[in-house]
Order: sequence, then C-alpha cells, then structure tokens
Amino acid sequence: MFEVLPGFRDFYPENCTRRNFIFQRWKDWAKRFDFLEYDIPTLEPLELFTQKSGEEIVGQLFHFEDQGGRAVALRPELTPSLARMVGSRINSLQRPVKWFNIAENFRYERKQKGRLRSHYQFNGDIFGEPGPQADAEIIALVISVLSGFGFKPTDLKLRLSDRTLWSIFLQGLGFEGDRALEVLAVIDKMERLSKEDLVTQLTPFFNDAVDDFLSSVELLRSQRDIEGLQSAMERLAPTAEIKQLAVDRLTQWRDLLASLEALGVSEYLQIDLGIVRGLAYYTGFVFEVFLLDEDGHSTGRALAGGGRYDHLVALLGYPAVPAVGFGMGDVVLGDALAEKGLMPPLVNAPDFQCIIGGPEERQLALEDAAILRSMGYRVSYPLKQVGFGKQFKQAGQSGAAFALIYGSEEREQDRVKIRDLRSGGELDLPRPHLPQHISGVISEGIPEKDQ
Amino acid sequence: MFEVLPGFRDFYPENCTRRNFIFQRWKDWAKRFDFLEYDIPTLEPLELFTQKSGEEIVGQLFHFEDQGGRAVALRPELTPSLARMVGSRINSLQRPVKWFNIAENFRYERKQKGRLRSHYQFNGDIFGEPGPQADAEIIALVISVLSGFGFKPTDLKLRLSDRTLWSIFLQGLGFEGDRALEVLAVIDKMERLSKEDLVTQLTPFFNDAVDDFLSSVELLRSQRDIEGLQSAMERLAPTAEIKQLAVDRLTQWRDLLASLEALGVSEYLQIDLGIVRGLAYYTGFVFEVFLLDEDGHSTGRALAGGGRYDHLVALLGYPAVPAVGFGMGDVVLGDALAEKGLMPPLVNAPDFQCIIGGPEERQLALEDAAILRSMGYRVSYPLKQVGFGKQFKQAGQSGAAFALIYGSEEREQDRVKIRDLRSGGELDLPRPHLPQHISGVISEGIPEKDQ
Repeated sequence: MFEVLPGFRDFYPENCTRRNFIFQRWKDWAKRFDFLEYDIPTLEPLELFTQKSGEEIVGQLFHFEDQGGRAVALRPELTPSLARMVGSRINSLQRPVKWFNIAENFRYERKQKGRLRSHYQFNGDIFGEPGPQADAEIIALVISVLSGFGFKPTDLKLRLSDRTLWSIFLQGLGFEGDRALEVLAVIDKMERLSKEDLVTQLTPFFNDAVDDFLSSVELLRSQRDIEGLQSAMERLAPTAEIKQLAVDRLTQWRDLLASLEALGVSEYLQIDLGIVRGLAYYTGFVFEVFLLDEDGHSTGRALAGGGRYDHLVALLGYPAVPAVGFGMGDVVLGDALAEKGLMPPLVNAPDFQCIIGGPEERQLALEDAAILRSMGYRVSYPLKQVGFGKQFKQAGQSGAAFALIYGSEEREQDRVKIRDLRSGGELDLPRPHLPQHISGVISEGIPEKDQ
Repeated sequence: MFEVLPGFRDFYPENCTRRNFIFQRWKDWAKRFDFLEYDIPTLEPLELFTQKSGEEIVGQLFHFEDQGGRAVALRPELTPSLARMVGSRINSLQRPVKWFNIAENFRYERKQKGRLRSHYQFNGDIFGEPGPQADAEIIALVISVLSGFGFKPTDLKLRLSDRTLWSIFLQGLGFEGDRALEVLAVIDKMERLSKEDLVTQLTPFFNDAVDDFLSSVELLRSQRDIEGLQSAMERLAPTAEIKQLAVDRLTQWRDLLASLEALGVSEYLQIDLGIVRGLAYYTGFVFEVFLLDEDGHSTGRALAGGGRYDHLVALLGYPAVPAVGFGMGDVVLGDALAEKGLMPPLVNAPDFQCIIGGPEERQLALEDAAILRSMGYRVSYPLKQVGFGKQFKQAGQSGAAFALIYGSEEREQDRVKIRDLRSGGELDLPRPHLPQHISGVISEGIPEKDQ
C-alpha cells in the first residue's frame, strides 16, 4: 500500500471535474483575449532558476543530478522557461507575443496547512509592448476571468501599484539601483514587520530621518485615487526634475486607468501603493488580487498577482524585450469558489444508459451505442449481464439523462424504447430511426404520458 | 542562454495547438465511452514503480532523494498510481470503474532518434469487471479514437492476442507459474531473435524437443481466425482437460469478437498470437496497434497497446480487482497523423481584430471588445497606436475573420464598420446594435458589395 507524497494530490474524478472546470474557464477567457497557448518542460536545468532568482531558491526546489550528470529541477514557476522561449526566437515571433499556459509547478515548501508542493497555475504574458496598453490587457484578463467565475467587486479587489513610481520617489531621496531595491524590499515587508523592526531595518539607510521617511511612505500608501497620488508625489518631490518624472509617469497611469475603465473592470480596481511584490525582477505596474471577507476587508489571500518585468529576458542572456504578465493558482481559487458558493454543480454523467435484456439484445444495444457515440453522444451500458431492475437502479444512480431499453419484445420488432429518466416519459421507435430522432429527444426531453 | 534538456520539448503555440488537437480528440472519445477523467501526481515514491516492475526499472527513471530524504521518481507510467487510487477506495467506488487520463510520463531513455524522455500518454482503464465485455469496451475505444482521427483499416491493425490461451498451451506442455512466464518471455522475443539464439534460450526448457515446440508455436502464431485458433488448440492439447480449457477460453474470444463486431470496429482487428507484450503483469487478452505501410505491412511502430492485468492491484497490497486498460502516446500518433495527411489545418486566430484610429476611438473599441469577449468571442486590438494601413496588414496576417473599424467618422456617429476579411464585404452599424447583430455576422459572413 502506498501513500501520495506529502503536498501532492490524487485527483479522483469528482475533484478532477472541479479542477477541469477551472482549467476550462481559464482557457476560455485567455482565448477570448486572443492569447495563444504554449507549454514548457516539467524538468529544466537548475541554473535557469538560479540565474533568475539567485542561489537561495535552491532550498525550495525539487532538484537533483540526472543520470547524465546534469543539475536539473522540477519547474517552480514558468517565467524563466517562457523568457527562454521568447528570447531565443524574438526575431521571428510576431509582436506583441500574447501567450498563456496552464501547468503544474513544484516547490519543496515546509509542511503547512494549505501549502501544497505541487499546484497548477494559469499564466498569461505579453512580450514586446512597453506601454500601459499591455498592462491593461493583462489586468483586464485577470479581472475578467475572476468576474466570469461570478466574483463581484465586493468579493475581491485588484490592488494596483507601481514600482516605477516608488523608484521616482526613492530617486528623490537619493536612492537608485540596488540601494533603491533594498529600501523597496523593506517597504514590501511593512505590513508584516513591527514598528521596531521596521526602524531597525531602515536606520542604515535614513539614520535620524526614518520617521520622516515613514510618514512619506504612509502618505503614498494611503492614496486611493490618481489625483491624490499626483498631489502626494508632487508634495514629496524635492526637485522640479523629480516632479516632472512623477507627472509623466502619472500620465501613463491615466492611460492605463482609462483602458481599464473602457474594458469594464474598474469596479474591481483599488489603487494601493502598499503592493510592492518582493521579487526583484518587477519593473513597473504591479498588482495583486485579494479575496475580501463579508465586511470588505482583505482576507490576505491572494488569488492572482503579476506585473511588468522588462529586464528578465535580457538577464537570461537574450535581447532585451519588455514584458508583463500574471499568475493565478488553482488552490486558493478553488477554495474561494467553494466559500463564495460559486462552484456550480458539475454534471459528469452519460447522455444514454442502455438497459439490456440478454446476449442477443446486447448486440443491438452495442450497435446503437457505436452509432450514437460516433454522433458525439456519451453512451454507457452494463459490462455484465444483470437483471432489468438492477440496471434501472444503476441508470438512475449514474445520472444519465435517458435510458435506451432493449428487451426481447423490442428486439423482435427491431425497436428501442427511450425513457427520459427525469420526467419518466417514454418514446418507442424503430431502431433505424434512432439517429434522426436523437437530437430532438436530447434537446426537448420526453414529456410524461398522461394517464 | 539556456537549452531545453535533451529529450524534452518546448511547445511553441503552433505545436501546442497540434498537441491540444490530439488531447481534445482523446478526451472527446473517452467521454463518448463514458470514461471519467482522473489525475495522479507527477512525483511518486520510487518504491511504487519498483514494486510493480522490479529493481531493473530504476535505471530508466528520473529518480532522486527529496529534501525530506524520500526516494522519489518522476512517473514513467500511470498504472501503478492508478492501481493505488482504485485499490485504496475499492469498496466505495461504483463498479465498473471506467477512468481515463492524459498525462506526461518520464523515462531516462538512452539518446536515440525519436526517443524522447518526456511524452504524453492517453490511458483508459476499466476495473471491477473480469469478463470480455470490459476488454471489448477498451479495444473499441482505442480503435474508435484512431478511426475518429481518420485512420482507415488499411492504415493500421490492432493485433489481438491472449496470454490466457498461451498459458493453457504451456500448461499442456507442463509449464505453469513463473516457468510458464519465462517461456512466454522467449516467445515474446521470437520476431527479434535469430533462430540460433532462440534455440539456445529454449533448450533449457525443451532439450531435444525445441523444434517440436517451435512448430507448435508457429501453428498458433499463424492463425488469423477463431476457427483456425480453435482447431490448432485442439490439435495441440495433450489431454481432454486442456482441450476443455481451450474451448472454454475460445467461448470468451467469441463473446469478445461479437461485441467488437457490434461496436463496428472489427475491420481494424487482426487475430495474432505473436503479440505477447513483455510485461509480466498482463494476464488475459493483450493487443497492440501497429501502423501499416502502403503495402499493408506493419511498420513496427506501435500506436497503442494494452491488455488485461488482473493481478496488479493485489500485487501492490490492495484487495484483488480485475483490470484491463490501454496506453496511447502522442509522439508516434502525431508522426502518423502527419504522414497520412490526417492532421487538419488548425486555425488559431481571433474572430475580430479592431482597427483603431486614435486614443478617442480606442476607448470605444475597448468597450466593444469587452462586450464581445463577454459573449464568448475572441477579440484582439493593437496595443500600440499605428497607422490604419499597418493595422489592416496585421489584421490580414492574424487570420482574423472580421475587422471592426473605429475611425473618427465612425466615432462621431457612434457607429462601427465590420469588414469581412475573407469576402471584403462591409457592414456599417450603430455601435449599440453590435451585440445583437454579431452572431448573424459570424455565421453568415458579409457578402461583397456589388459595384
């Protein structure tokens, strides 16, 4: 007897159906937005991931040396492989590249409630377009998918932030490049750190001016509209040059927000510079989607996240190409759908269940089953000969819409009886007429006979 | 710059579309046969595979010790995990269990043309039914899928054999249990061994009677119909008891063949006891599907294979349950579809491409795009503002069916122009009327205007 490895999942049909429902909706919306599907290997050179994320990621990976002596890892995410695919064909791919993928990712997480070591993620990315229209397309896709599942603006918020605006602010304080990233990393942790730890971590950068810095950060973090953001940035800008950078950037914000408004998703948006997204490779607009509780407060559970990462492709050694994308996982989403009552009842049952009298009738039932299946219908029949009563019971349990009844009487007349298992209504047909009547039967049902 | 690991594949959208076409057909036919989809972990305890296949499989596996010290492996096949899933819930699952799956499998193959280290396999299995009706359902599904792709009986043959019949024959010669399996393993290799090697390997079992044995085997292997098989078995049976076993077994053959006839797939069948399938765990009917060349000879390339394995679930430590299944890989199938010209042209293009005059028109185009997308249509628009001419060129290249044209004139009148990019015909509509007219436009097209 064998157990599934900790953090992995067997999908029995019922759970597989729910998972596939999520996958299907993901695919469907990606296609409506004209994203093309691609796929990448499950196993990749370890260096692909350390090159992007640094050596510290190794501790979180399923990695090993393969039989050919290569250092390899199960992919923890898709982005580096995607950057390889795009980077290595950048001159022949039609731009913008709008691609999506649904795949399993692996992380050796410490055991923790809800933390799996394998989960599925829906990724969408646009390469080749630096302007905010690409960001708008990504954000609109994320919200449209979630709103398509039935989430209302009261159920979730997409918190929209901007690493470029933070960079301009930090540049005003004299921080650029890696030093700016270090300060940004502390801002990213603000919600989780105690005041004391925060001051400790910021003192090396600001000495006595930590309190001033923190109130400036608070001012930015508390803005919820574009005008407030603009006046805050103008107030904090120490020079005309910095002010101009901020004004120019906010013009791009206005462009982004106008498109999101036109795309009908602004009700789900919340401007919130508190979102920084820890990963060093983000470069512009960034966002996270949080589930809200009944009082409209964030539950802290992120349904999706993403942003612009214009430097990654070049970091991996390919020509520079601007990029923006998102990821959305199946686990938090599945839980949220269940919690909000948005997982529809999923029927996974045959259209027709054959009820078979005996060996001679079986031949006729199988002939008809083959015809109906070739027409696209889902047909089942008992593999073992049991009594009529038991077969009808099984047909009821199977959730089949109709029973096709093959008794000796029907066989002698070369007829078949169709019973609507919901209404109980029956229809008796010559077997050769079955194909031409079946689509009407499926769409209309068979009314119960008046007695 | 990074390479894909040897034997792995990046799927660019064009190849991904072809792969998904195959997956979709697989799923579609599995559902018509009322198989339910399930899924299993990518990573499993190494012992799950050695328990089934012996230690010698380890050399073919991607295996390693995970960070928790567990011996784990990437799955080389699905069957052991499937047996675990079914075995561990055998008392609560409704029988027969009819399940399918499409998943990636991994083997550390020696580098060789066409030998990948990762490929996708379509698996279907039935548990809980020992009789030939379950074998018929599996075989009919395999053939229906392939015939659904367009393969004709002249393109491929399903060679049907029977380990039970071989066991009865060997029992007549005094071989049972492991000894019988050893002889069977040599029969399995007959097509590939030289006469000399064959005699060498058989001599320990038959001494001077090797030639007699070989001519009996040839007699069985050369039968192509049930009557021939019956008279050969009767002729070779040394006792009345063995003869009766053979006759009883051939009754099950007749049952199987009658169902396959009723299911409309017999044209693809070939009785051929030459198929043994090496794996020790097969117990009854076994089969392999081979691609034929233009002269009707086997190309040696197997499109699918499978059979009955009634002992596996118990071997893994669960209650015994009869089982029969098949596997079909994506690589040989994809090649065969291409060779036989059966891969249809796959369109992967938007329904609508918006042509946008400028920023003000963009807002209108995005509003309409959002509405059409919410109706299920696939809509694209340029993310960067370029001239009309370039946009029309891009729309043509994209393969879009229709262009939606938003110029300043249309904006001023709140109208939109729809151009059928195949016929060149155009239709001019008030924007608010777009949703109600769009399904007619999609289904009918727009005729070219008479000049």
